[in-house]
Amino acid sequence: MKVGVLGPRGTYSELAAKKQFGEKVTIVPYPKITDVANAVASKKINFGVIPVESLREGSVGEALDAIAWTDIKVHAEIVAPISHSLLGVPGSKLVQIAQVLSHPQALAQCREFLRKNLPKAELIEMTSTAKAAEQVGKLKRPHMATIGPKALANLYGLEVLHDDIQSGETNTTRFLCLAKEDSKPTGRDKTSVAFYTAQDRPGILHEILGEFAVRNINLTKIESRPSKKALGDYLFFIDFEGHREDAKVKEALEGLKRKTAMLKVLGSYPRRF
Amino acid sequence: MKVGVLGPRGTYSELAAKKQFGEKVTIVPYPKITDVANAVASKKINFGVIPVESLREGSVGEALDAIAWTDIKVHAEIVAPISHSLLGVPGSKLVQIAQVLSHPQALAQCREFLRKNLPKAELIEMTSTAKAAEQVGKLKRPHMATIGPKALANLYGLEVLHDDIQSGETNTTRFLCLAKEDSKPTGRDKTSVAFYTAQDRPGILHEILGEFAVRNINLTKIESRPSKKALGDYLFFIDFEGHREDAKVKEALEGLKRKTAMLKVLGSYPRRF
Repeated sequence: MKVGVLGPRGTYSELAAKKQFGEKVTIVPYPKITDVANAVASKKINFGVIPVESLREGSVGEALDAIAWTDIKVHAEIVAPISHSLLGVPGSKLVQIAQVLSHPQALAQCREFLRKNLPKAELIEMTSTAKAAEQVGKLKRPHMATIGPKALANLYGLEVLHDDIQSGETNTTRFLCLAKEDSKPTGRDKTSVAFYTAQDRPGILHEILGEFAVRNINLTKIESRPSKKALGDYLFFIDFEGHREDAKVKEALEGLKRKTAMLKVLGSYPRRF
Repeated sequence: MKVGVLGPRGTYSELAAKKQFGEKVTIVPYPKITDVANAVASKKINFGVIPVESLREGSVGEALDAIAWTDIKVHAEIVAPISHSLLGVPGSKLVQIAQVLSHPQALAQCREFLRKNLPKAELIEMTSTAKAAEQVGKLKRPHMATIGPKALANLYGLEVLHDDIQSGETNTTRFLCLAKEDSKPTGRDKTSVAFYTAQDRPGILHEILGEFAVRNINLTKIESRPSKKALGDYLFFIDFEGHREDAKVKEALEGLKRKTAMLKVLGSYPRRF
C-alpha cells in the first residue's frame, strides 16, 4: 500500500501516516500538499496524509484549497502531538553547540530550551526541519545541531542530544488522510463540507447554519477562506458531528444544497476529538 | 510619526505603511508580527502595519492572535497588490542568471516566469525576500538574482532585471494598521470582533450570527482559530459592515456580549473593499 505524505522523509506528516497505517506501508514523499492531493486523485497512491490545522499556527491554507478543488475525499483525520528533539552529529555534546539550524516555527517553539541551554548559539533559519537535518548530517560539524522530529536522526545519521524540547504548552497538529473514497459510518463520525454562498447578503450564513442548528447538529469548525478571485469573496469550510449517511445530516446537506451556489461534501470519517 | 512594520526593511508591509501614511513617516521594522503589536501597545510607535490576509495564502494566524491578545485596536485596513520583480547585481543580464534566491511563496508565485525565462536556474529557498536580497547584494555575483518587491533594489544595491513577474492572477494582501485607538465613523466602515462562545453546543454560533442577521448587518469575514488550549476549542473572528457607534451595530454587540464568554471589539475603521 502506498501512502503519500508532505515530504521530505522524516517530517511530521510521515509520522502521522505511520500512526494511521503502521510501519509497513510504503511512504511516498511529495514536495507540496497539492502534489499529494493530485497523486491521490490520479490513483498513483492509495492514501495521502497532509497537515491541515495546527494548534499554534491555525489552518494550512494550501490544504484547504487542495481538499476543495481536487477530486478526492477526506478519509480520516489524524491528531498527532508535535515533539521536537535537538539532533547533532554522533559524539557531539550539548555544550559544543554553537549553531542551531531549523525551520523558524520549530526554533520559535523551542525558544525557552534554547534560551536556557544554548543562549549563545546562532539560530539559522531553514525552509524545513528535514532540510536542516540533511545539512547538519552532510557537514558533520560537531558544533552544529538541528531541531526537528526524532525520526530525522536515523534518516540523516544524527544523534538525539535532547528530546521533547518544545515549550511547555502542548502543540497538536491535525492531519487529514485523503483517498478516493471517504469512510463508512462508525457511530462517532465527523463530516467536512466546503461551499460558496449564492449571494453576499446579510443573513445568508445565518440561514445556512440554521440547517445545522434546527437539527441539533454540532459544528466543530467553521472557516472562511478567500476564493482567490477577490478579497471578500469567500469559500466556507465547515466540519460538523455526524456521518453524511445519518438521516438528519442528509436533511441538513439537502438544505445546504438549496442555499449555496456550490457545495462539496468533502467526506465523512471517524471523529478523533 | 513612527510606524512599525513587519520587517526587515523593504518588505510588502513597509510598502503598505507608505501607501497609508506617505513617504515621510519613520519606518521601524520589527522581526515578528507580535513585536509590532506589542510596540503599539506600549506606545513605542504610533501605528503598526501587519499582513493579516492574503488572497493566495489565507489568514495570517500570528496576526489574528496578536490583535486578539494585545491591548491595541484595529485603526485601518490597507489593501495592496503584491508585485514581484527579478532583481540582480548592477550590470547583470537575465541570460546570465543561474541561481534565484527568494522566499518559497515568492518563487511559487513566479513559477511561470521562471519556467519560461530561466528554466535551468537553481531555485534557492530563503526565509524572507529581504534576506534573499541582502544575500545577493552582499555576494555581488552576476549569476545570482532574487525575487521580491522592487523597493528591495534600492535597499540592497540591486537592479531590476524584470518587473511584475508574478503569475497572471492577481494577488492582493490585506494589511491591518494597529493603534491605541480605532477610527471615527466615516459612513462606510467595517468592525472586527473576536469572541469565545460560552458553551460548545449545537446552534450557539447560529444564535450569535442571528444578532447580525436580524439587524440586516452584512458579515464580510468569519473565521475560527484554535484557542491554543485544545484542538476543537475555537476563538472566532468576525468582520462586518458598520461602525461600533452605529445604533444597530451597538445593539448587535450588546447581544453578542450576552451570548459569548469573552468578546473583544477589535475596532471600527474605514472599509476598503
